[in-house]
Amino acid sequence: MKKSLKELAEWVDGTVIGEGDVEISGVAPIEEAEPGEITFIANPKYLSKLSETRASAVIVSKDIRQADKPLLSSGNPYLAFGKILSLYSQKPYQARGIDSGAFVSPTARLGKDISVFPSVYIGDRCSIGDRVTLYPGVCVGEESTIGEDSILHPNVSVYPRTTIGKRVILHAGVVIGSDGFGYAKDGKKNFKVPQIGTVEIEDDVEIGANTTVDRATLGKTILRRGVKIDNLVQVAHNVVIGDDSIVVAQVGISGSTKLGSNVTVGGQAGFVGHVSIGDNVMIGAQSGVMNDLASNQAYTGSPAIPHREFMRIVVSYLKLPDMKKLLSDIDRRLKKIEQPDASENKEK
Amino acid sequence: MKKSLKELAEWVDGTVIGEGDVEISGVAPIEEAEPGEITFIANPKYLSKLSETRASAVIVSKDIRQADKPLLSSGNPYLAFGKILSLYSQKPYQARGIDSGAFVSPTARLGKDISVFPSVYIGDRCSIGDRVTLYPGVCVGEESTIGEDSILHPNVSVYPRTTIGKRVILHAGVVIGSDGFGYAKDGKKNFKVPQIGTVEIEDDVEIGANTTVDRATLGKTILRRGVKIDNLVQVAHNVVIGDDSIVVAQVGISGSTKLGSNVTVGGQAGFVGHVSIGDNVMIGAQSGVMNDLASNQAYTGSPAIPHREFMRIVVSYLKLPDMKKLLSDIDRRLKKIEQPDASENKEK
Amino acid sequence: MKKSLKELAEWVDGTVIGEGDVEISGVAPIEEAEPGEITFIANPKYLSKLSETRASAVIVSKDIRQADKPLLSSGNPYLAFGKILSLYSQKPYQARGIDSGAFVSPTARLGKDISVFPSVYIGDRCSIGDRVTLYPGVCVGEESTIGEDSILHPNVSVYPRTTIGKRVILHAGVVIGSDGFGYAKDGKKNFKVPQIGTVEIEDDVEIGANTTVDRATLGKTILRRGVKIDNLVQVAHNVVIGDDSIVVAQVGISGSTKLGSNVTVGGQAGFVGHVSIGDNVMIGAQSGVMNDLASNQAYTGSPAIPHREFMRIVVSYLKLPDMKKLLSDIDRRLKKIEQPDASENKEK
Repeated sequence: MKKSLKELAEWVDGTVIGEGDVEISGVAPIEEAEPGEITFIANPKYLSKLSETRASAVIVSKDIRQADKPLLSSGNPYLAFGKILSLYSQKPYQARGIDSGAFVSPTARLGKDISVFPSVYIGDRCSIGDRVTLYPGVCVGEESTIGEDSILHPNVSVYPRTTIGKRVILHAGVVIGSDGFGYAKDGKKNFKVPQIGTVEIEDDVEIGANTTVDRATLGKTILRRGVKIDNLVQVAHNVVIGDDSIVVAQVGISGSTKLGSNVTVGGQAGFVGHVSIGDNVMIGAQSGVMNDLASNQAYTGSPAIPHREFMRIVVSYLKLPDMKKLLSDIDRRLKKIEQPDASENKEK
Repeated sequence: MKKSLKELAEWVDGTVIGEGDVEISGVAPIEEAEPGEITFIANPKYLSKLSETRASAVIVSKDIRQADKPLLSSGNPYLAFGKILSLYSQKPYQARGIDSGAFVSPTARLGKDISVFPSVYIGDRCSIGDRVTLYPGVCVGEESTIGEDSILHPNVSVYPRTTIGKRVILHAGVVIGSDGFGYAKDGKKNFKVPQIGTVEIEDDVEIGANTTVDRATLGKTILRRGVKIDNLVQVAHNVVIGDDSIVVAQVGISGSTKLGSNVTVGGQAGFVGHVSIGDNVMIGAQSGVMNDLASNQAYTGSPAIPHREFMRIVVSYLKLPDMKKLLSDIDRRLKKIEQPDASENKEK
Repeated sequence: MKKSLKELAEWVDGTVIGEGDVEISGVAPIEEAEPGEITFIANPKYLSKLSETRASAVIVSKDIRQADKPLLSSGNPYLAFGKILSLYSQKPYQARGIDSGAFVSPTARLGKDISVFPSVYIGDRCSIGDRVTLYPGVCVGEESTIGEDSILHPNVSVYPRTTIGKRVILHAGVVIGSDGFGYAKDGKKNFKVPQIGTVEIEDDVEIGANTTVDRATLGKTILRRGVKIDNLVQVAHNVVIGDDSIVVAQVGISGSTKLGSNVTVGGQAGFVGHVSIGDNVMIGAQSGVMNDLASNQAYTGSPAIPHREFMRIVVSYLKLPDMKKLLSDIDRRLKKIEQPDASENKEK
């Protein structure tokens, strides 16, 4: 497929700077791009590469106004890049049918044009939507529902009675619906509190490899529409994550914590249980969230506090040895003033 | 099944406040409970919901003495809730037999009434106890033993020569017996030290989804009776975790570290190798344990120190910018006293 | 197999202290060793056990000069131990062939003497090298290549178009080639940026259980020769890890970050995206790396700074409550000097 730079710019609502008739046949990274390809500067650090790339055009942000080659300037260059990359890379879905090496319960309801690979297991009374793809080793426990056009990558485990929406993507090794971690101390022993709730994953959610989402004790663990979760994240029982929120790798969210919509959580952050996070909150990497957090703010640190306060603390923290030295120094100087001549004092 | 509130109270060693004859047919979350159901206040935060719930009775702690509906008062309300939930939710085990799509080595010894799903692999000379359930995609390596009534959820991987006790629950994606992380530097190259030890998991252990437990270099990695581990935890080679200990999600325990009995480790905490933790120790979330820790105490922080010391440090830490400002201020004021008139000094 | 202590010492370039003719038939941990076995002191903490062990000989470092039993003294005792353990534990490879319960695409190219267990999936146009072992539940997506003598443990998922070198070991549950975590905000919604790059894993790499390695957006995520990664590590899109680097459990490496060769990363450390780490760098456990780091140094902390600076800060950090108290104290004392008699002042 070939498109002119001008056509691409129109498609992504951007502007051409320079020659708009250049023909583009693909997308490539800046170091590897060949003539006929378009590339993208992901990070201002790499601006110097603009003059070196062999690409025929470059997607850039609005603050780059000229170059020795055609530019596609955009107010949201990463989105423009994503849309153009989709244009060149998307392939139409082709149904593979149901492999004879898969196990499908006779009581499961199957949609049209599904793809079921070998070693898949579909339990009793499941409902599988149209054009769903289940890769090898996927297990769908009984009475679970998977909405149309969803993709479950290899070795995903879905426990019984889980609800998964439309266009959901679960990457390899994801576990949905495992028991929440609930024990009551009975003397020294741990009594297992049954986890009889479920998990509900709404439409357009994507979950990264080996992430785990526990079922609720009672009620539901809920990932709302458009939530995107990275790899190796822990979502505990009865957590609710609001629409379009983003959770980066290795985050841990404890039981019954609620995240608002459009929240962004940096990698390796942790949340205690039973806290509420407002909408549009940003939480820094490695933070430890121990309290409710109000909407529309950025927080960092452990305990997580407003990001600007945190940055002021970090500045002081890095100066701690100097502060400690100055403090001893001041103490000594002050003592000298308080007791002008220590030897004299002793003579009194 | 229906029980009167009075019967339930007797069963969990609690007291009825109000009408004891009310009939209870199930358990539900406080917002969703219907008449005829009992519910539970998990957290004092939710006390206000007591008057709103439609439940016919509520399990509460002893400090709640009255309400406009029958209460089941307990010294350990979470345990009472767990036991009542068990009563209403437990189903008798039904053996499924061995699916023809499973692979079972002819040299494996199989107990009575087992459930082996499709795509399960049972290696040579394994021993599988009575009423064991192996869900789809479970792999049990050769010469491993699984005790009676244990449940291995989908896609669990058990390496060869692993010993798993009775009534053990391994959630989906758990890996038991993978090689410990041991390399010796041979010049710049990493020489792999063989990991020829094993893993022993005692009775009544439960392990959360995608947690990994490495085999010992020599000897055994051991999880003792009643240990409960959450999701995505790393247990390295030669670790020993004592009876009834609890390890929350995403904790990492380095090689040869020993945890005593009845230890509780908060989420995302980490341990260096070769340290010993006493009995009844509590370790806060995100802590970094770098030394042996004595029994019967709580520790937090990185490095982990007694919890009360840690809390005092945090208070100061959050005041660091103020401290830094006051320190400069004091330094300036002190200089003024030390050199009463800087211009005068210069004139000398 | 039996070897004399003298033969073992020659093989690992060590020295015998005491009787060199003692026959050694195996290796065992210090508490469990029997006569005829050799053992190893892994950690100076355990030196006291030297006189208690029943082992016939002990591998020690050069600073231990005598004992009441034969010693094998080495400048690198852990390496000596590893090599001797290999000698006694390595078994010759035996090809198992292709199990009839595996799925192998007719367009896959298969090497000689491979071992393919039940429930394995090998996709179209894959290339599997000689003597490769694929354990149960392994899925190799289409057009992937696996080099000779590599071992993929149970339930490993390899996405399409991945390249895996020779003698690579992937432990159970590893995921290679899952989509990088890339979304562009399109208003409030998250637009998925296609991840059309690949992953390249070079020779002699070993990856721990349930670790995830994402494919590049464009181009390649690369793990160079001899890299060793522990369990539950996250390697994001377009990361490059240099030769012989070691990454301990639960580390998270964000997108496009580059690690040099021979880098060591402690457990639970995290990296922001787009930073470069030099060669021979050591990064402490739980660190948060936010900037480029120069070669040949040790760094710790969050933000990660040179290790010695970090240690000085920790010393001050642990004294923070004392510092705060002293600071208030000084402020009070200074005020007394500044205003010699507060009551007098008021009387003026």
